[in-house]
Amino acid sequence: MRTLKIKPLTAEAFRPFGDVIEIGNNQSQPMNRGMAERFDALGRVELQGEQARAVISLVRSSQYPVPHTVDLVERHPLGSQAFIPLEDSPFVVVVAPAGESVTSDALKAFRTNGRQGVNYRSGVWHGLLFTPFAAMTFICVDRAGEGSNCEERSFPPGQQVLLDP
Amino acid sequence: MRTLKIKPLTAEAFRPFGDVIEIGNNQSQPMNRGMAERFDALGRVELQGEQARAVISLVRSSQYPVPHTVDLVERHPLGSQAFIPLEDSPFVVVVAPAGESVTSDALKAFRTNGRQGVNYRSGVWHGLLFTPFAAMTFICVDRAGEGSNCEERSFPPGQQVLLDP
Repeated sequence: MRTLKIKPLTAEAFRPFGDVIEIGNNQSQPMNRGMAERFDALGRVELQGEQARAVISLVRSSQYPVPHTVDLVERHPLGSQAFIPLEDSPFVVVVAPAGESVTSDALKAFRTNGRQGVNYRSGVWHGLLFTPFAAMTFICVDRAGEGSNCEERSFPPGQQVLLDP
Repeated sequence: MRTLKIKPLTAEAFRPFGDVIEIGNNQSQPMNRGMAERFDALGRVELQGEQARAVISLVRSSQYPVPHTVDLVERHPLGSQAFIPLEDSPFVVVVAPAGESVTSDALKAFRTNGRQGVNYRSGVWHGLLFTPFAAMTFICVDRAGEGSNCEERSFPPGQQVLLDP
Protein backbone atom coordinates (compact mmCIF):
# COMPACT_ATOMS: atom_id res chain seq x y z
CA MET A 1 0.00 0.00 0.00
CA ARG A 2 1.28 3.42 -0.90
CA THR A 3 2.35 5.61 2.03
CA LEU A 4 1.19 9.20 1.80
CA LYS A 5 3.89 11.76 2.45
CA ILE A 6 2.99 14.13 5.27
CA LYS A 7 4.13 17.71 4.85
CA PRO A 8 4.14 20.60 7.32
CA LEU A 9 0.92 22.58 7.20
CA THR A 10 1.30 26.10 5.83
CA ALA A 11 -1.32 28.63 4.81
CA GLU A 12 0.10 28.67 1.30
CA ALA A 13 0.06 24.92 0.80
CA PHE A 14 -3.44 24.66 2.28
CA ARG A 15 -4.96 27.57 0.33
CA PRO A 16 -6.70 25.36 -2.29
CA PHE A 17 -8.44 23.50 0.52
CA GLY A 18 -9.28 26.18 3.04
CA ASP A 19 -7.89 28.33 5.83
CA VAL A 20 -5.18 27.72 8.39
CA ILE A 21 -6.31 29.27 11.67
CA GLU A 22 -3.18 30.41 13.46
CA ILE A 23 -1.49 33.51 14.77
CA GLY A 24 1.58 32.70 12.70
CA ASN A 25 2.72 35.77 10.81
CA ASN A 26 -0.75 37.28 10.56
CA GLN A 27 -1.36 40.92 11.39
CA SER A 28 -3.54 41.96 14.31
CA GLN A 29 -5.64 44.97 15.25
CA PRO A 30 -5.75 46.33 18.78
CA MET A 31 -9.02 46.02 20.72
CA ASN A 32 -10.25 46.55 24.27
CA ARG A 33 -8.18 49.68 24.77
CA GLY A 34 -5.04 47.97 23.70
CA MET A 35 -5.37 45.13 26.21
CA ALA A 36 -6.08 42.65 23.44
CA GLU A 37 -5.33 42.14 19.78
CA ARG A 38 -7.54 40.52 17.19
CA PHE A 39 -6.30 38.38 14.32
CA ASP A 40 -9.39 38.91 12.26
CA ALA A 41 -11.27 36.51 10.03
CA LEU A 42 -8.59 33.83 9.81
CA GLY A 43 -11.39 31.45 8.89
CA ARG A 44 -14.45 32.30 6.82
CA VAL A 45 -17.56 30.29 7.60
CA GLU A 46 -19.39 29.23 4.45
CA LEU A 47 -23.11 28.48 4.61
CA GLN A 48 -25.33 27.39 1.74
CA GLY A 49 -28.82 25.99 1.50
CA GLU A 50 -32.05 26.31 3.41
CA GLN A 51 -32.11 27.39 7.01
CA ALA A 52 -28.34 27.25 7.07
CA ARG A 53 -26.79 28.42 10.30
CA ALA A 54 -23.39 28.11 11.87
CA VAL A 55 -22.90 26.21 15.10
CA ILE A 56 -20.02 25.86 17.52
CA SER A 57 -19.42 22.34 18.76
CA LEU A 58 -16.70 20.49 20.62
CA VAL A 59 -15.18 17.31 19.24
CA ARG A 60 -13.15 14.97 21.39
CA SER A 61 -10.93 12.66 19.38
CA SER A 62 -9.16 9.55 20.66
CA GLN A 63 -5.53 8.89 19.90
CA TYR A 64 -5.39 6.81 16.72
CA PRO A 65 -3.16 3.78 16.34
CA VAL A 66 -0.54 4.10 13.61
CA PRO A 67 -0.06 3.46 10.79
CA HIS A 68 -3.52 4.50 9.71
CA THR A 69 -5.21 3.42 6.50
CA VAL A 70 -7.10 6.12 4.62
CA ASP A 71 -9.94 4.18 3.04
CA LEU A 72 -12.53 6.94 2.88
CA VAL A 73 -12.96 10.66 2.46
CA GLU A 74 -15.94 12.91 3.06
CA ARG A 75 -17.08 16.35 2.01
CA HIS A 76 -19.65 18.90 3.11
CA PRO A 77 -21.11 20.51 0.00
CA LEU A 78 -23.19 23.07 1.90
CA GLY A 79 -20.69 24.56 4.29
CA SER A 80 -17.18 24.94 5.58
CA GLN A 81 -15.95 23.01 8.58
CA ALA A 82 -13.31 24.22 11.00
CA PHE A 83 -11.37 22.29 13.62
CA ILE A 84 -9.26 24.24 16.07
CA PRO A 85 -7.46 22.26 18.77
CA LEU A 86 -7.66 23.20 22.43
CA GLU A 87 -4.40 21.39 23.09
CA ASP A 88 -0.96 22.33 21.85
CA SER A 89 -0.52 19.09 19.97
CA PRO A 90 -0.08 18.47 16.27
CA PHE A 91 -2.56 16.47 14.26
CA VAL A 92 -2.77 15.41 10.64
CA VAL A 93 -5.25 16.44 7.96
CA VAL A 94 -5.79 14.66 4.67
CA VAL A 95 -7.46 16.58 1.87
CA ALA A 96 -8.24 16.43 -1.84
CA PRO A 97 -9.63 19.12 -4.13
CA ALA A 98 -13.37 19.74 -4.31
CA GLY A 99 -15.15 18.11 -7.23
CA GLU A 100 -17.56 15.28 -7.99
CA SER A 101 -14.95 12.58 -8.17
CA VAL A 102 -11.96 11.94 -6.01
CA THR A 103 -9.18 9.41 -6.15
CA SER A 104 -6.52 8.72 -3.59
CA ASP A 105 -3.91 9.97 -6.07
CA ALA A 106 -5.21 13.47 -5.31
CA LEU A 107 -4.79 13.20 -1.55
CA LYS A 108 -2.43 15.47 0.32
CA ALA A 109 -1.52 15.12 3.98
CA PHE A 110 -0.41 17.92 6.29
CA ARG A 111 0.88 17.88 9.85
CA THR A 112 -0.02 20.89 12.00
CA ASN A 113 2.62 22.49 14.19
CA GLY A 114 0.55 22.23 17.36
CA ARG A 115 -0.70 25.82 17.19
CA GLN A 116 -2.80 25.58 14.05
CA GLY A 117 -6.41 24.84 13.25
CA VAL A 118 -7.93 24.25 9.84
CA ASN A 119 -11.08 25.32 8.06
CA TYR A 120 -12.09 23.09 5.15
CA ARG A 121 -13.82 25.03 2.44
CA SER A 122 -17.24 23.74 1.27
CA GLY A 123 -16.92 20.66 -0.87
CA VAL A 124 -13.28 19.93 -0.12
CA TRP A 125 -12.70 16.22 0.35
CA HIS A 126 -11.05 15.29 3.63
CA GLY A 127 -10.18 12.26 5.65
CA LEU A 128 -11.29 11.65 9.20
CA LEU A 129 -9.73 13.97 11.73
CA PHE A 130 -6.51 12.07 12.42
CA THR A 131 -4.98 12.49 15.86
CA PRO A 132 -2.04 10.08 16.05
CA PHE A 133 -0.04 11.85 18.76
CA ALA A 134 -2.55 12.36 21.57
CA ALA A 135 -6.22 12.43 22.40
CA MET A 136 -7.35 15.93 21.55
CA THR A 137 -10.33 18.21 21.90
CA PHE A 138 -11.30 20.55 19.07
CA ILE A 139 -13.63 23.45 18.62
CA CYS A 140 -15.63 22.75 15.49
CA VAL A 141 -17.42 25.49 13.58
CA ASP A 142 -19.64 24.21 10.81
CA ARG A 143 -23.09 24.29 9.28
CA ALA A 144 -26.38 23.08 10.62
CA GLY A 145 -29.66 23.18 8.73
CA GLU A 146 -31.75 21.35 6.18
CA GLY A 147 -30.27 19.34 3.33
CA SER A 148 -27.71 16.65 2.85
CA ASN A 149 -24.35 18.03 3.91
CA CYS A 150 -22.16 14.97 4.17
CA GLU A 151 -21.02 12.73 1.34
CA GLU A 152 -18.54 9.89 1.63
CA ARG A 153 -16.39 8.08 -0.89
CA SER A 154 -14.75 4.81 0.00
CA PHE A 155 -11.55 3.74 -1.68
CA PRO A 156 -11.25 0.14 -2.86
CA PRO A 157 -8.30 -1.74 -1.30
CA GLY A 158 -5.98 -1.02 -4.23
CA GLN A 159 -6.63 2.72 -3.86
CA GLN A 160 -6.15 2.97 -0.11
CA VAL A 161 -3.14 4.79 1.27
CA LEU A 162 -1.22 4.61 4.50
CA LEU A 163 -0.40 7.39 6.93
CA ASP A 164 2.60 6.76 9.12
CA PRO A 165 3.43 9.93 11.03
CA MET B 1 -17.25 52.10 44.41
CA ARG B 2 -19.42 49.03 44.53
CA THR B 3 -17.63 45.71 44.04
CA LEU B 4 -19.41 43.31 41.74
CA LYS B 5 -19.77 39.81 43.11
CA ILE B 6 -18.26 37.20 40.79
CA LYS B 7 -20.12 33.90 40.60
CA PRO B 8 -19.11 30.61 39.02
CA LEU B 9 -20.22 30.37 35.40
CA THR B 10 -22.91 27.79 34.77
CA ALA B 11 -25.05 27.18 31.70
CA GLU B 12 -28.16 27.81 33.76
CA ALA B 13 -27.03 31.13 35.20
CA PHE B 14 -25.76 32.28 31.80
CA ARG B 15 -28.84 31.25 29.80
CA PRO B 16 -30.35 34.77 29.63
CA PHE B 17 -27.11 36.02 28.09
CA GLY B 18 -26.00 33.23 25.78
CA ASP B 19 -24.35 29.83 25.65
CA VAL B 20 -21.63 28.25 27.75
CA ILE B 21 -19.38 26.25 25.44
CA GLU B 22 -18.08 23.33 27.46
CA ILE B 23 -18.12 19.57 27.54
CA GLY B 24 -19.50 19.69 31.10
CA ASN B 25 -22.45 17.34 31.41
CA ASN B 26 -23.49 17.67 27.79
CA GLN B 27 -24.32 14.61 25.73
CA SER B 28 -22.23 13.59 22.73
CA GLN B 29 -22.76 11.65 19.53
CA PRO B 30 -20.13 9.29 18.14
CA MET B 31 -18.42 10.21 14.87
CA ASN B 32 -15.49 9.01 12.78
CA ARG B 33 -16.26 5.32 13.40
CA GLY B 34 -16.35 5.83 17.11
CA MET B 35 -12.89 7.40 17.29
CA ALA B 36 -14.38 10.77 18.17
CA GLU B 37 -17.44 12.21 19.83
CA ARG B 38 -19.21 15.42 19.01
CA PHE B 39 -20.83 17.74 21.53
CA ASP B 40 -23.08 19.35 19.01
CA ALA B 41 -24.19 22.96 18.69
CA LEU B 42 -23.11 24.12 22.12
CA GLY B 43 -23.06 27.63 20.67
CA ARG B 44 -25.45 28.97 18.05
CA VAL B 45 -24.05 31.66 15.80
CA GLU B 46 -26.55 34.48 15.22
CA LEU B 47 -26.28 36.63 12.10
CA GLN B 48 -28.52 39.50 11.12
CA GLY B 49 -28.31 42.24 8.54
CA GLU B 50 -26.88 42.64 5.09
CA GLN B 51 -24.11 40.45 3.82
CA ALA B 52 -23.79 38.96 7.27
CA ARG B 53 -21.29 36.16 7.52
CA ALA B 54 -19.56 34.38 10.37
CA VAL B 55 -15.82 34.58 10.77
CA ILE B 56 -13.34 32.76 12.97
CA SER B 57 -10.69 34.99 14.53
CA LEU B 58 -8.08 34.68 17.24
CA VAL B 59 -7.91 37.15 20.09
CA ARG B 60 -4.87 37.46 22.31
CA SER B 61 -5.59 39.18 25.61
CA SER B 62 -3.03 40.54 28.04
CA GLN B 63 -3.24 39.82 31.75
CA TYR B 64 -5.23 42.65 33.36
CA PRO B 65 -4.19 44.34 36.56
CA VAL B 66 -6.67 43.95 39.41
CA PRO B 67 -8.90 45.31 40.71
CA HIS B 68 -10.51 46.32 37.44
CA THR B 69 -13.04 49.10 37.03
CA VAL B 70 -15.98 48.36 34.75
CA ASP B 71 -16.72 51.74 33.23
CA LEU B 72 -18.18 50.62 29.93
CA VAL B 73 -20.16 47.86 28.26
CA GLU B 74 -20.72 47.06 24.62
CA ARG B 75 -23.17 45.06 22.56
CA HIS B 76 -23.38 43.63 19.07
CA PRO B 77 -26.95 44.03 17.84
CA LEU B 78 -26.42 42.12 14.60
CA GLY B 79 -24.77 38.97 15.79
CA SER B 80 -23.60 36.69 18.54
CA GLN B 81 -19.99 36.67 19.69
CA ALA B 82 -18.20 33.66 21.11
CA PHE B 83 -14.91 33.47 22.98
CA ILE B 84 -13.42 30.07 23.62
CA PRO B 85 -10.03 29.97 25.37
CA LEU B 86 -7.15 27.94 24.04
CA GLU B 87 -5.61 27.82 27.50
CA ASP B 88 -6.94 26.03 30.54
CA SER B 89 -7.25 29.21 32.53
CA PRO B 90 -10.30 30.89 33.99
CA PHE B 91 -11.42 34.33 32.91
CA VAL B 92 -14.25 36.62 33.92
CA VAL B 93 -17.24 37.78 31.90
CA VAL B 94 -19.49 40.70 32.80
CA VAL B 95 -22.92 40.84 31.22
CA ALA B 96 -26.24 42.65 31.39
CA PRO B 97 -29.53 41.84 29.64
CA ALA B 98 -30.15 42.99 26.07
CA GLY B 99 -32.18 46.15 25.71
CA GLU B 100 -31.81 49.79 24.75
CA SER B 101 -30.71 50.98 28.14
CA VAL B 102 -28.31 49.45 30.60
CA THR B 103 -27.23 50.43 34.06
CA SER B 104 -24.49 48.94 36.15
CA ASP B 105 -27.12 47.69 38.60
CA ALA B 106 -27.99 45.09 35.98
CA LEU B 107 -24.45 43.77 35.62
CA LYS B 108 -23.59 40.19 36.49
CA ALA B 109 -20.09 38.75 36.62
CA PHE B 110 -19.12 35.11 36.11
CA ARG B 111 -15.82 33.30 36.50
CA THR B 112 -15.21 30.42 34.11
CA ASN B 113 -13.78 27.17 35.42
CA GLY B 114 -10.89 27.11 32.95
CA ARG B 115 -12.63 24.73 30.53
CA GLN B 116 -15.49 26.95 29.43
CA GLY B 117 -16.08 29.38 26.61
CA VAL B 118 -18.99 31.77 26.22
CA ASN B 119 -21.20 32.87 23.37
CA TYR B 120 -22.93 36.21 23.92
CA ARG B 121 -26.30 36.34 22.23
CA SER B 122 -26.98 39.29 19.87
CA GLY B 123 -27.59 42.47 21.75
CA VAL B 124 -26.43 41.26 25.16
CA TRP B 125 -24.40 43.94 26.93
CA HIS B 126 -20.97 42.79 28.03
CA GLY B 127 -17.80 44.19 29.48
CA LEU B 128 -14.39 43.87 27.92
CA LEU B 129 -13.01 40.36 27.93
CA PHE B 130 -11.42 40.31 31.37
CA THR B 131 -8.39 38.07 31.82
CA PRO B 132 -7.04 38.76 35.32
CA PHE B 133 -5.24 35.45 35.88
CA ALA B 134 -3.05 35.07 32.80
CA ALA B 135 -2.52 36.27 29.27
CA MET B 136 -4.84 34.15 27.16
CA THR B 137 -5.64 33.38 23.56
CA PHE B 138 -9.24 32.89 22.46
CA ILE B 139 -10.99 31.65 19.39
CA CYS B 140 -13.62 34.22 18.55
CA VAL B 141 -16.61 33.41 16.34
CA ASP B 142 -18.68 36.41 15.42
CA ARG B 143 -20.27 38.36 12.62
CA ALA B 144 -18.71 40.27 9.78
CA GLY B 145 -20.62 42.28 7.19
CA GLU B 146 -22.25 45.62 6.56
CA GLY B 147 -23.90 47.67 9.26
CA SER B 148 -23.09 49.02 12.67
CA ASN B 149 -22.53 46.06 14.95
CA CYS B 150 -20.88 47.56 18.00
CA GLU B 151 -22.44 49.97 20.48
CA GLU B 152 -20.84 51.15 23.68
CA ARG B 153 -22.28 52.67 26.84
CA SER B 154 -20.00 54.37 29.33
CA PHE B 155 -20.93 54.51 33.00
CA PRO B 156 -20.45 57.79 34.84
CA PRO B 157 -18.10 57.52 37.84
CA GLY B 158 -20.93 57.01 40.32
CA GLN B 159 -22.19 54.05 38.28
CA GLN B 160 -18.89 52.28 37.80
CA VAL B 161 -18.25 48.98 39.54
CA LEU B 162 -15.15 47.16 40.64
CA LEU B 163 -14.09 43.61 39.82
CA ASP B 164 -11.69 42.06 42.28
CA PRO B 165 -11.26 38.40 41.44
